[in-house]
Amino acid sequence: MEKLMEKIISLAKRRGFVFPSSEIYGGVEALWDYGPLGSLLKSNIKKEWLKTFVQKKDNVVLIDGTVVMHPKVWEASGHLKSFTDALIECKSCHARFRADHMDAGNFVGQGKAKAKNQCSLCGGKEFTEAKQFNLMFKTYLGPIEDEAHVAYLRPETAQSMFANFKHVQESMRLKIPFGIAQIGHCFRNEITTGNFTFRSREFDIAEIEYFVKPGEDEKIFDEWLNDWEKFFVDLGLKKENLRRYEHPKGDLAHYSKRTVDIEYKFPFGWSELAGVANRTDYDLSQHAKFSGKELGYFDEESGKTYIPYVIEPTLGVERLLLALLADAYGEVEGGRTKTTESVKEKEIVLKIDRKLAPVKVAILPLLKNKPDLVKKAKEIHGNLKTNFICQYDEAGSIGRRYRRQDEIGTPYCVTIDFDTLEKDEVTVRDRDTMAQEKVKVSELLNFLKLKLEV
Amino acid sequence: MEKLMEKIISLAKRRGFVFPSSEIYGGVEALWDYGPLGSLLKSNIKKEWLKTFVQKKDNVVLIDGTVVMHPKVWEASGHLKSFTDALIECKSCHARFRADHMDAGNFVGQGKAKAKNQCSLCGGKEFTEAKQFNLMFKTYLGPIEDEAHVAYLRPETAQSMFANFKHVQESMRLKIPFGIAQIGHCFRNEITTGNFTFRSREFDIAEIEYFVKPGEDEKIFDEWLNDWEKFFVDLGLKKENLRRYEHPKGDLAHYSKRTVDIEYKFPFGWSELAGVANRTDYDLSQHAKFSGKELGYFDEESGKTYIPYVIEPTLGVERLLLALLADAYGEVEGGRTKTTESVKEKEIVLKIDRKLAPVKVAILPLLKNKPDLVKKAKEIHGNLKTNFICQYDEAGSIGRRYRRQDEIGTPYCVTIDFDTLEKDEVTVRDRDTMAQEKVKVSELLNFLKLKLEV
Repeated sequence: MEKLMEKIISLAKRRGFVFPSSEIYGGVEALWDYGPLGSLLKSNIKKEWLKTFVQKKDNVVLIDGTVVMHPKVWEASGHLKSFTDALIECKSCHARFRADHMDAGNFVGQGKAKAKNQCSLCGGKEFTEAKQFNLMFKTYLGPIEDEAHVAYLRPETAQSMFANFKHVQESMRLKIPFGIAQIGHCFRNEITTGNFTFRSREFDIAEIEYFVKPGEDEKIFDEWLNDWEKFFVDLGLKKENLRRYEHPKGDLAHYSKRTVDIEYKFPFGWSELAGVANRTDYDLSQHAKFSGKELGYFDEESGKTYIPYVIEPTLGVERLLLALLADAYGEVEGGRTKTTESVKEKEIVLKIDRKLAPVKVAILPLLKNKPDLVKKAKEIHGNLKTNFICQYDEAGSIGRRYRRQDEIGTPYCVTIDFDTLEKDEVTVRDRDTMAQEKVKVSELLNFLKLKLEV
Repeated sequence: MEKLMEKIISLAKRRGFVFPSSEIYGGVEALWDYGPLGSLLKSNIKKEWLKTFVQKKDNVVLIDGTVVMHPKVWEASGHLKSFTDALIECKSCHARFRADHMDAGNFVGQGKAKAKNQCSLCGGKEFTEAKQFNLMFKTYLGPIEDEAHVAYLRPETAQSMFANFKHVQESMRLKIPFGIAQIGHCFRNEITTGNFTFRSREFDIAEIEYFVKPGEDEKIFDEWLNDWEKFFVDLGLKKENLRRYEHPKGDLAHYSKRTVDIEYKFPFGWSELAGVANRTDYDLSQHAKFSGKELGYFDEESGKTYIPYVIEPTLGVERLLLALLADAYGEVEGGRTKTTESVKEKEIVLKIDRKLAPVKVAILPLLKNKPDLVKKAKEIHGNLKTNFICQYDEAGSIGRRYRRQDEIGTPYCVTIDFDTLEKDEVTVRDRDTMAQEKVKVSELLNFLKLKLEV
């Protein structure tokens, strides 16, 4: 399984899914750039999420809030006090490590692990008492760097949905139950990083704060948990690679009545992909208290005002992307396509759902030295690209080009050959079945639209 | 014109386009949250941009890089040294102001302006010499806050496209000319803010770094300038509200051979909306120098390696959003719809392009106390919402509901009346012409798809 991880990292870099950020300068730990295919894949994930949970839902609306918010927000939410790791410091070289990794002798703070509770940098054996370190990135608003101007980069998107609760409810005339959804960039100054993109210092969270009447929270929690899980299965993740992890009562976060993680069987083991939490009325109550504002909801039926409970389904977008790559990755030893070349190496096929595939259609003229074929292929490419992300490729044998597309998960290859010139027919090859079908050029666009459900 | 700005701000808040960030805590200067309609509008702008400049172009690919990059990036790019404002400090209260606003007596640093070069906070008249203040937000990677761990939030997206130049070119097997595109979140610690969302501390930039052979840069510059401008006109901005501003040679940024701004006639005056710059080989050369890496491009035809020139078309996404609102905003005194109610107030119509409209279709049962109509309307809503962002509304008279949709720019209203129950026909009303057309329910989806070009 560890080997699968290496293969995915290698494919991701070689084919333009994921690059280490600032790699020409040696990179920065836990920061990753999404390349041409990775950024399209990410964009497609967001699109499907938006379609499923905003467009198709009657009572969920989107917002897009700022990363920097008023510092009071983090006081009210509890992040200033509780969003911390305990760190210890080596007394001789002042390197810092996570205290909870001390017993295991597994120090991953600023250097590599060393056994026997030694400092991994200088070998020192004496450490300070543990001190809390906040995981929020800190900055300053305006030119003066003092306590009065401190601001934080959000470590989650939830708080802007609470802070905007009234604005959203009133401007959209929403009635409970309703949800506010957001996909947003978040930052965490992680001490423990690793497992490729799994624990990054920058990432996108897609989440919903769903406001419900107290008493209806438990039922609605279960509904969202099912909906949330179904989303992953619909995007093609294998059911056997998904499981639920119910947080024991004693381990729940300070705001939570119940939390269930949806875990994915990553190549490095079962780990959190998404989750649903019952945040009760904690957040709105806290913000009401700290802001002095009335954040209740007036219930027309009962004539009473109450603070709604919140069910929060949440998802790490880049974690889903990594899960999708791992789930879709396949190899065929000795080659799956029969071509004139003898294929000795293994072939990679990325069987990613066609809704998510970064490139939808490849357009391949059979031979690049036949101007008629090239011209026709470019014409077809010109027509198709107004509808889908397409790739035109004329380099190498057809078999080689098929393999190139299989590796990046392109669902359909359209080959322009002599039949195209004579009978106005192209050959459409299906990534998964490798079946080839003749399609009239005039019917090609609709054929592909139907197949790709666009 | 100033009044138009107030009207837009009011509409934006009342109908859920834009809210002040963290407003329950008094807000934060120059930070704005995009509400349910604003976030959809922003998302539609990005979608159209992506379709126009990535999907439909043969040789432009997308990336999605991190906000925090290696600090060397900003040394190489010149930002550490040059991305600054000169500030002066009041000797008595230590408030800071922009030095270039000193002569005008127009201090907007931490307080309101006062004439006669007095400190606007304490009235002091003595100031320090001007000192450079960097506009990049500063933070620290890891738990130690010292110079060795300083990092910056990107003030533009361009640098990750330069840093990834080789990775992208090689993984996508691109040949010059080609472009790398990115829409990304950027941060600037602005001292001068104001004009609603125009100068915000957080914003999205959509830009392309288009790599060309030196010598071909001037011609390609002109092509991009035309393409870029055409994009705005295609999205419905009025031609007379757009103009070009050619930066005089002496005023060009240190990296630029030529820069042309595309200005929009905002309610507060002509201001920069977008631009095209010829960055020459400055950035790649700098990064090659600072990283010690080879960042040249091997030209197969000539057998020579050269550093490409870069043409950079760039756009402020939120500025375009503001321009679109201003451009689309219209009022009809006394009312445009003839209804049974006497309409005394003015009516607002947001004639925004249908591709960009946040809500595409409103579904309106004629009467909410007729269960048959409501049931049918909900059924139609259920079918349409799998394809478009729809709004179901049964509250108030039909005239009132039309006006509600006109205000937010919904292109089509579908009314379910007794003809729907008898003849299976709905009435589709066009926002701009107010023409009403009878459409068979079975043909409604295709009718709307065609109208909305989806």
